[in-house]
Amino acid sequence: MDSLSLDQARTMLRGVFAKSAELQLKPLACVVLDAGGILIAYERQDGSSNLRFEIARGKAYGALGVGVSSRAIATMANERPVFVQSLIDASNGRVVPAAGGLLVRDASGRVLGAVGVTGDTSDNDERCAAAGIEAAGLLTDPVPNA
Amino acid sequence: MDSLSLDQARTMLRGVFAKSAELQLKPLACVVLDAGGILIAYERQDGSSNLRFEIARGKAYGALGVGVSSRAIATMANERPVFVQSLIDASNGRVVPAAGGLLVRDASGRVLGAVGVTGDTSDNDERCAAAGIEAAGLLTDPVPNA
Amino acid sequence: MDSLSLDQARTMLRGVFAKSAELQLKPLACVVLDAGGILIAYERQDGSSNLRFEIARGKAYGALGVGVSSRAIATMANERPVFVQSLIDASNGRVVPAAGGLLVRDASGRVLGAVGVTGDTSDNDERCAAAGIEAAGLLTDPVPNA
Amino acid sequence: MDSLSLDQARTMLRGVFAKSAELQLKPLACVVLDAGGILIAYERQDGSSNLRFEIARGKAYGALGVGVSSRAIATMANERPVFVQSLIDASNGRVVPAAGGLLVRDASGRVLGAVGVTGDTSDNDERCAAAGIEAAGLLTDPVPNA
Repeated sequence: MDSLSLDQARTMLRGVFAKSAELQLKPLACVVLDAGGILIAYERQDGSSNLRFEIARGKAYGALGVGVSSRAIATMANERPVFVQSLIDASNGRVVPAAGGLLVRDASGRVLGAVGVTGDTSDNDERCAAAGIEAAGLLTDPVPNA
Repeated sequence: MDSLSLDQARTMLRGVFAKSAELQLKPLACVVLDAGGILIAYERQDGSSNLRFEIARGKAYGALGVGVSSRAIATMANERPVFVQSLIDASNGRVVPAAGGLLVRDASGRVLGAVGVTGDTSDNDERCAAAGIEAAGLLTDPVPNA
Repeated sequence: MDSLSLDQARTMLRGVFAKSAELQLKPLACVVLDAGGILIAYERQDGSSNLRFEIARGKAYGALGVGVSSRAIATMANERPVFVQSLIDASNGRVVPAAGGLLVRDASGRVLGAVGVTGDTSDNDERCAAAGIEAAGLLTDPVPNA
Repeated sequence: MDSLSLDQARTMLRGVFAKSAELQLKPLACVVLDAGGILIAYERQDGSSNLRFEIARGKAYGALGVGVSSRAIATMANERPVFVQSLIDASNGRVVPAAGGLLVRDASGRVLGAVGVTGDTSDNDERCAAAGIEAAGLLTDPVPNA
């Protein structure tokens, strides 16, 4: 498999919103990026606030940027705030350190892209991102207990 | 109601400055943004310092950006400083995390725009923003005790 | 009608890609923005190049920025290049002067948002944008013969 | 007289919109800047497009920047495009070379600020800006026949 297709991205978006409906969360926004960090698809549910695209993308972009989930970058931001700030600056403000951004991997472990979700708590955002990846039959790294 | 009109924005500005006169505050500056974060009206009272527009807009823009008052963003900035910094950077410096920015809602709860006030203490700024919204017969979220 | 919904945006995306399939065009990318210029939805077809999101958004954002189609901004760019460059700079590079961005209006003429399409010739991009708007039962300004 | 007051700025805004109503123009947006280029007041009429603040400010800011009307800067942009582009870049995109921005002077010729208007043709925008300055009993430089 070379890269995430638009069809796979749509499947992930449907999976994200299905999980959100099940959990009765606030309106969510979700991006799917390819392995190069390029946007494949984005949707925001009605009632979302205005910076949701930037936040969703920032979670996914950061995950691809350093090869971990955005939850791990949030933890890093507590421990080494100036380092994470340097990543934010180096990426022209494209990294957002909060849970909800997950790498997408194939069965061999290769990174195919990332999903970023925002709108509810970071823990719930991450749950939905994981559900989206699962809906597409793809994998992410094990998510620590949130 | 479709969107905040210029007439409504003027009414809010008058309400902000009337409250400020009543409380005998320092010179204030006030923006009214529509739901998309676009500027409808701005006024600064004589004697205001030079970054007041950027501060007033940053409070209102941030409120619209994440769907809460700018007071809530200020609280978030204490708890998760790098995350809030990432919002500032993702918005090209358009988010200012300090009380004084309030969402404007209609009776059904829909967000119509935001008001941002600066010039006195953040608590007093917020009081005036709330007075402006009330003067226009519109609603904001409950303001925690300042 | 308050604002473009996600459902309406999806209908427009489907309409854009249906027209593209009918005309056998190259891979397209399409954004739908709300009236404030905020992203509601985006999809790029497989095989799209890397700046397609920025181009699609820039067409739609420019249309909302000055209240005309991005074709009109492209014409303006020929006649008054430095003026259009100043709009690009004033918007932090968010205006792209090329056909393919169309305002979305309701029956009363009110602007509800904009669609931006890129990937084939500008004329074909614009045809697809118009088809997307029509698919959602909405209106745009008359498109000059391309 | 030290600087434009908020009262004077409001009088200019009223004068701009009164002239616009008389001429039956499209919705206008208008800024008033003080001599340092700092925003005193802004209003946009209902139905304005989204970049109107940036355009109105860019006309007034440019006028203050080089000490002439923005019409003169537009002429300069035709004759020396790279020079005017360098002004745009040097000001971080804050100069917009199009008629509609006028210096505000007192009787002694001292610059007190500037008015910038946008929304209709540049010529009509400039007519309204001049009417606003006149309404406040202040002066601008002679406007060439538009």
